[in-house]
Amino acid sequence: MKIAVLGYGNLGRGIECAVKHNDDTELKYVFTRRDPSKVKILTEGAKVVSVNDIEKYRDDIDVLIICGGSATDLPEMTPKYAEMFNVIDSFDTHARIPEHFANVDKAAKDNGHIAMISVGWDPGMFSLNRVYAGAILPDGSDYTFWGRGVSQGHSDAIRRIEGVLDARQYTVPVPEALEKVRNGENPVLSVREKHTRECWVVAAPDGDKARIEREIKEMPNYFADYDTTVNFISQEELDRDHKGIPHGGSVIRTGSTGWNNENNHVIEYSLKLDSNPEFTSSVLIAYARAAFRMYKEGIRGCKTVLDVPPAYLSSMSGEELRANML
Amino acid sequence: MKIAVLGYGNLGRGIECAVKHNDDTELKYVFTRRDPSKVKILTEGAKVVSVNDIEKYRDDIDVLIICGGSATDLPEMTPKYAEMFNVIDSFDTHARIPEHFANVDKAAKDNGHIAMISVGWDPGMFSLNRVYAGAILPDGSDYTFWGRGVSQGHSDAIRRIEGVLDARQYTVPVPEALEKVRNGENPVLSVREKHTRECWVVAAPDGDKARIEREIKEMPNYFADYDTTVNFISQEELDRDHKGIPHGGSVIRTGSTGWNNENNHVIEYSLKLDSNPEFTSSVLIAYARAAFRMYKEGIRGCKTVLDVPPAYLSSMSGEELRANML
Repeated sequence: MKIAVLGYGNLGRGIECAVKHNDDTELKYVFTRRDPSKVKILTEGAKVVSVNDIEKYRDDIDVLIICGGSATDLPEMTPKYAEMFNVIDSFDTHARIPEHFANVDKAAKDNGHIAMISVGWDPGMFSLNRVYAGAILPDGSDYTFWGRGVSQGHSDAIRRIEGVLDARQYTVPVPEALEKVRNGENPVLSVREKHTRECWVVAAPDGDKARIEREIKEMPNYFADYDTTVNFISQEELDRDHKGIPHGGSVIRTGSTGWNNENNHVIEYSLKLDSNPEFTSSVLIAYARAAFRMYKEGIRGCKTVLDVPPAYLSSMSGEELRANML
Repeated sequence: MKIAVLGYGNLGRGIECAVKHNDDTELKYVFTRRDPSKVKILTEGAKVVSVNDIEKYRDDIDVLIICGGSATDLPEMTPKYAEMFNVIDSFDTHARIPEHFANVDKAAKDNGHIAMISVGWDPGMFSLNRVYAGAILPDGSDYTFWGRGVSQGHSDAIRRIEGVLDARQYTVPVPEALEKVRNGENPVLSVREKHTRECWVVAAPDGDKARIEREIKEMPNYFADYDTTVNFISQEELDRDHKGIPHGGSVIRTGSTGWNNENNHVIEYSLKLDSNPEFTSSVLIAYARAAFRMYKEGIRGCKTVLDVPPAYLSSMSGEELRANML
């Protein structure tokens, strides 16, 4: 399967690594908005090409993986490139998925391609597990906990405060809340009761730490609704102790069965990830495989993880899967 | 969706309860090998019918759920009834799945039906999670832990010992082993290191407890390879404290990503079930919904959980799922 990526940031580099772990995939092209001569990649034999020339490669790519931001890049890029290629993205603005789906579906269908959107872990594997668990236990409650992990959005928000040189923010589930949910206690949890926020901040030498801490803790939407701790450290400490991009979390459904709801059940799917972008990339490669299989079967238009039979993700055949994995 | 069940034991009763929890399903018939007048069911309006008359109901059933044993019932029953109906079973003899699949596939295809086999949680939801996790992290290791839960097979084995009146056996994961796996330590674990076996035994008044305990602990395949504890209790205590059929377990995959495998990840799917048969039944009903949808789309032959797009399990439409669950 001939893979190309558009965009060579954390996610694009993750795709490059994931291709190395999957024998049936080959990275052919990295398309970039930068000057291609300035982009150094790891894969021997793959070419770095300006995105302006992407159309020339229409016939040499099975699936194009679009690694752009959900706010402005993907709503424009995914429909555009679905006209030329089979495409896949990790669009993660939950509220705008229906609109993005409609745009991508039209572009893909009009041009005879398959497209897959919102692939990753949330949306993605977490969504899948919400659907499976909800279908099995229709009488129940869903809980999602994120972390312990780095939130790029919250880290960026801190960095925009005056006097802050650098920052890293971890989202942390509250252990007592997790415990109650896992015990099937069906708690009603406020935002504050579910997660805490832990900030590691490098202040400028003349930065007013008391003001910075106050501005963080009072920031609406990002921090005001949470119990937030702020720790000031040096740039060296931040680089040494907080350079990774770990993440994870749990999707839990608790529900009851029986003639009178007399039996309770807990279904939990959880992830503990050293590298959020590399894991997301690994999910993308598995779904690129599925997309290309579905394309070869004549399936066109936009799909999501909810439309893909699990067997299509695996490099094993149906027979091998039934013999070894079922 | 008009549902019928064949067999009214724990699983059949579980189906009856699951139908009550799913508004789009209706229990029409319970087929039994017993005298129908002796079988009391809970659902008003559903009919109890002798299995000898099952063929008369060909046109009034969307999906027949076959609740039989995997050892001798299902290998014979599922292909037989796939000739008359869309069928679904929970065949769980892993090693014989390819053979069962081939037989059921032929019967279903020759007669224009869809059939789904090996639906439940293992095989079933656990298999799904092995396939998903294996496709995402091709470089990694799989672990499955079962329990804490009642093993019917092991309980039966104890009851066959002379001087035993009743017994209940729990399979229990070893906490230290689980911990190591969850920490990504990638341990190589022997049978003994993964699970212990806990037995609650009612001995006859003249039963030789020392001999019973020895016979349990030395029983090949069932107990000899495990650390086993044997507790003697009264029938009253057994009935009071051990009447449920709880089960559960975890499927864990640990694996690495990155150019040099520098990042590690843990994917875990776990179940904690008050009632093993009611949970299995709930999975069966969700897959009966999927099977009937696929049938209406013209799909024929034998399928497994690996062939079913997750969206087909849900009573929500694709649009609703994308807007609310993705």
